[in-house]
Amino acid sequence: MSQGATAGGHRGTGRRRPAAASSAPAPERSQGYRRLVNPYAPPRIYSDDQVAAIHAAALSLLETKGMKVLSAIGRQRYKEAGATVDEATQLVRIDRGLVAEALATAPAEFTFRTLNPEFDVPIGGQGVCFAPTSGPPNIMDIHGGRRAGTLEDFRNLMKLAQSFDVIHSLGGAVEPQDVPVHLRHYETTRSMLLLSDKVPFVYSRGSKQIADSFELIRIAHGVDAEAFKERPYVWTVINTNSPLQLDIPMAEGIIDFAAAGQVLIITPFTLAGAMAPVTITGALTLAHAEALAGITLAQSVRPGTPVIYGSFTSNVDMRSGSPAFGTPEYAKAAFGAGQLARHIGLPWRSSNATASCAPDAQAVYEAEMSLWGALMGGANFILHAAGWVEGGLSTSYEKFILDVEMLQMFAELFQPVGAEASDIAVDAITEVNHGGHFFACAHTMERYRTAFYSPLVSDWRNYGTWANDGAKTATDRANAIYQKTLEQFVAPLRDPAMVEALNAFIERRTAEGGAPLVS
Amino acid sequence: MSQGATAGGHRGTGRRRPAAASSAPAPERSQGYRRLVNPYAPPRIYSDDQVAAIHAAALSLLETKGMKVLSAIGRQRYKEAGATVDEATQLVRIDRGLVAEALATAPAEFTFRTLNPEFDVPIGGQGVCFAPTSGPPNIMDIHGGRRAGTLEDFRNLMKLAQSFDVIHSLGGAVEPQDVPVHLRHYETTRSMLLLSDKVPFVYSRGSKQIADSFELIRIAHGVDAEAFKERPYVWTVINTNSPLQLDIPMAEGIIDFAAAGQVLIITPFTLAGAMAPVTITGALTLAHAEALAGITLAQSVRPGTPVIYGSFTSNVDMRSGSPAFGTPEYAKAAFGAGQLARHIGLPWRSSNATASCAPDAQAVYEAEMSLWGALMGGANFILHAAGWVEGGLSTSYEKFILDVEMLQMFAELFQPVGAEASDIAVDAITEVNHGGHFFACAHTMERYRTAFYSPLVSDWRNYGTWANDGAKTATDRANAIYQKTLEQFVAPLRDPAMVEALNAFIERRTAEGGAPLVS
Repeated sequence: MSQGATAGGHRGTGRRRPAAASSAPAPERSQGYRRLVNPYAPPRIYSDDQVAAIHAAALSLLETKGMKVLSAIGRQRYKEAGATVDEATQLVRIDRGLVAEALATAPAEFTFRTLNPEFDVPIGGQGVCFAPTSGPPNIMDIHGGRRAGTLEDFRNLMKLAQSFDVIHSLGGAVEPQDVPVHLRHYETTRSMLLLSDKVPFVYSRGSKQIADSFELIRIAHGVDAEAFKERPYVWTVINTNSPLQLDIPMAEGIIDFAAAGQVLIITPFTLAGAMAPVTITGALTLAHAEALAGITLAQSVRPGTPVIYGSFTSNVDMRSGSPAFGTPEYAKAAFGAGQLARHIGLPWRSSNATASCAPDAQAVYEAEMSLWGALMGGANFILHAAGWVEGGLSTSYEKFILDVEMLQMFAELFQPVGAEASDIAVDAITEVNHGGHFFACAHTMERYRTAFYSPLVSDWRNYGTWANDGAKTATDRANAIYQKTLEQFVAPLRDPAMVEALNAFIERRTAEGGAPLVS
Repeated sequence: MSQGATAGGHRGTGRRRPAAASSAPAPERSQGYRRLVNPYAPPRIYSDDQVAAIHAAALSLLETKGMKVLSAIGRQRYKEAGATVDEATQLVRIDRGLVAEALATAPAEFTFRTLNPEFDVPIGGQGVCFAPTSGPPNIMDIHGGRRAGTLEDFRNLMKLAQSFDVIHSLGGAVEPQDVPVHLRHYETTRSMLLLSDKVPFVYSRGSKQIADSFELIRIAHGVDAEAFKERPYVWTVINTNSPLQLDIPMAEGIIDFAAAGQVLIITPFTLAGAMAPVTITGALTLAHAEALAGITLAQSVRPGTPVIYGSFTSNVDMRSGSPAFGTPEYAKAAFGAGQLARHIGLPWRSSNATASCAPDAQAVYEAEMSLWGALMGGANFILHAAGWVEGGLSTSYEKFILDVEMLQMFAELFQPVGAEASDIAVDAITEVNHGGHFFACAHTMERYRTAFYSPLVSDWRNYGTWANDGAKTATDRANAIYQKTLEQFVAPLRDPAMVEALNAFIERRTAEGGAPLVS
C-alpha cells in the first residue's frame, strides 16, 4: 500500500467534477472514489496445489459428466468449437484443451466505455468496481413497507446510483412490475442512459430484447454495430442452472453478448447443500466447472470477448433449507473463488448479500461479511453492492444508503497510508508538550480538512445531542438521506437529438409489439 | 488455512463441556470457540523498511523528548533501570539499549491460568482471545434506555460473558456506580470469581486496590504469593496519557502487576488530530513510543513479565473534535499496529469500537470495520469485543449479543476449509442429475448437521414468516436473547470453603475501610 497503489484522483488531484455528478449531498472527499485500486494481498484458504486440484476436478467434470445445454443453438456452437454433443441427452462434453484455448483468449483486463469518459471503468488487476443490486421484484422503505417495484422505483435507484461516486456501474436495481415484460427493457435501458453516466446493464432475457437494448446503447453513443463490437459498453449476468445445466436464455445471452463483443459476467449460483455439494470446496468446484463451460462458449463465439469470472457460493440453513448469505462460509467461499479466478487469470465478480428482511443490524453484519470476503479476497466487480436485502427478493432504499456508507469506507481503506518523515511526524510530536494536544499545531492545521473520511450516515455526536435530536438510528438517517438525494438530483445533460432518436426507436419497436421475454 | 492451523476442539473432538458453561442457548457447534487460531496472513500498510523507520523514530523520541512520569516511584524505577531522569521536569529519557533489553525479556507467548483448566487461554502466536467491553459508566437496553451502571448490571454482564464460549476473558463491563469506589473492586472481583470460569480483570486504580484484588484471586486459586508470580492469572490495562505522559496510577499499576508476574496490556490511546498527530503514521509512532516506555518499565521491575502490546489509534471528526471509532482510518491503524507488534515480537491487543449511541446499523458497521481491521491485522487479544457503544461511555445489552454473533462468525471464518477429494466432491457431483439437487445424496446426509454455522441472532426465514412473527429486527431479537440467557444462567460450582474465604477477606477489608481509588 505504501507503494502508492492507487489510481484516479483522490485527495485533490484536480480531476474535474461534472455538474451532473454533484447533485448528491456527497462527502467532500468523494471525487476520488471513481477509480478504486485495492492494495491488499488477498488471504488464502487453499494452497497452490489445492487450487490446481480443484481446477483439474472441474475440467474432469466437463469432460466426463458434461453440461446439459437446453438451447439447440448453444449446443450447435459448442459442437462447432469442438465439444462432443449428444443431442438425445442434450449433454455437451468439453475437452480440457478447449477450455485452455478459451482461457488464453479471454482478456485479463478491459475498460468499460461510458457516455462521459470520466465514468469509464477499468476492470481487472487490482481495480474494484461497485454495481448496485440487480433483480429484486420488490422494493421496501421503512415508512412505506414492502411492495412490488415500479418504474418510478427503478428510476429512483438509477438516480441514487448516479449520485454517489463510489457506485461505478448500474444494475437491474428492482423489477418495474408496472411495465409489461415485452416493453420493460425499453424503459429500463432508456432510464439508465438518460439518468446516469455510468455503465448500463441488460438482462439476458432473449435475443430480441438484447438486440433492442444494444441498439439503444449504440444510438446513445452514436456508434454503429461494427464500432460497438470493438469496446465494452454494457454487461449482463449469466447464471447457470446448477448443477451443470445451461438454459435457453442464458446460452443465447452468452452467444449474443459475445458476438457483439460485450461483457459477460458468468456466475454459477451454487448454494452448498442444495444445488451444490454441502462442502464449500465442492460447491466451488461445481461453480468453477460451470463458469469454465460458459467462458468456453463465449470465447468460441468471439475470441477476446471480455468475460468476468463470477462466483456466488453460499450455503443453506440445513434445518430449514433457507438460503443464507453473508455467512462465514460465504466469506471463505469468496476467498477461495478469488484464488480460482487468479488461477485462470480473469477478472472476478463477487457480491454484497444478506438474508435479512429489514435494513437492520443483521443486514449490515451480513453485508460486511460479504464485502470483506469479496474485497479482501481481491474481487474486481461487486454486484448487489448497494440495496440488496431479503436474499435478493427486495431492494431497500435505506440499505442502499447504508451500503454506500460501507462502500465509501472501503474506498478509504484502499487509500495509501503515508510513511514519509512528515507522516511519522517526529517534529510535530517534539513540538507538543507532554500531556498536551495537537489541535493547533502546524502539522495538524495543514492537513485536518482532508485527513479523515467524512461519513454519510454515521452520527458521532454525544449522547445528549443525539437523543435531543430524536435519537434517530442509522436506518432512520438513511431514509432521510435517500429522500434528500432524490430531491436534489439533476440529470446529466444529453443531446436532445440523441434523446429524440432513443424515443423514436422505442416508439417504433413498441408499435411493432416489443420483444417477448424468453425464460 | 489448509495446513490445519486450528487449535482446540472444533467440530466434535469430544472436548467435555462442563455443566456450568451450558447455561446459555448456545448454538450446537460452539464448543470449538474456546481456542481460536487465526489462519490468515495479515495485510500490510507498511514495507519492512517503513516499519523499521517508525520503530527508530519512536526510539529517538524516548531518547530525546522522553516520557513525563508523574509517579515518583515510577521515576525511581526507571532511574534504577538506567534511564536518565530529571526530577525537576519529571522527564524520563530512555536509551534504545534499555528498550532492546526489555523487548528481549518480554515473552512472545504465555497462557492465562483460570479456575477451570478448560478455560485457560493461550495468548500470542496466531491465537485470538476475546474480552468484553471494559469501563463504560452507563448501561443501555432498548426498552429501559440509558442509565448509570449498577452491580446487578455488572453481574449480568459477567453471566453473559460466561455463557458464550467465544468470550474468553472477562473485563470491566460497566461501572457499578451503586457501590462506593473504595469497595467496588471487592464486589467486581468477587463477581468475576464466582460467576465465571474466565480470566478476571483488575483496574489499575492504586496499589491497595490491586493488592486486595490479587489476594482475592489467590484465595480463589488456593495459591500463595510466590506461586501466584509464576503464572498469569489476571490482567489490567495501562493507558498512557498521550502525548508521552504516564500518570501515577498507571505507573504504579505497571510496577505492581510486573512485581506479581501478572499481565499488563499497555495501550496508548492515540486519537489522531487530538492527543496525537493528525497522520495515522504519526499517531502510531507516538503510541509505539509510549508502549515501549511502559514495556521497558515492566521488564525492568521483573524481567519476563507477560506484556501485551496494546494499540488504540483512531481519529477525531475534524469538524467537531468528536472521537470516531471503527472508521477506515481505524482499520488502517490496526493493520499498521499489527505490523509494529510483530516487529517487536509481542502479543498484540486491539479493540471492537463504535461511536454509535444505539445498537443499530452504525454500531454494527463500525464494529465490523474494527473487528476486521484487528483480526485480519493479526490481533491476539480483542478488548471491548462485546457490548461497547457510544465511544465507550455505555455498554449495550443488545450490542453485547450482536457482537457475540459477529465474534462467532469470525470464529467460524478461522476454521479450515478442507480440500481433500471428499471435499472437492466429484463423486457427489457425478451422482446428482444435471439441474437436480444435493439434498438427499449421501455426501450431504453425512455432513449436513455440522456443515455450517448456526447463527445466534440472524433470522433467515422468508419475509412472510418473519413479518407474521412481528417483523422483529436483529436488535429486537438480541434483546430477547440476552434476557433468556440471564434467565437460564447457572453459576459454576465453587468450593463453599473458598467462597467463605473470599467473603471473609472482603468483610475484613471492608471493616478496615476498604481501599481508596487512586486516579
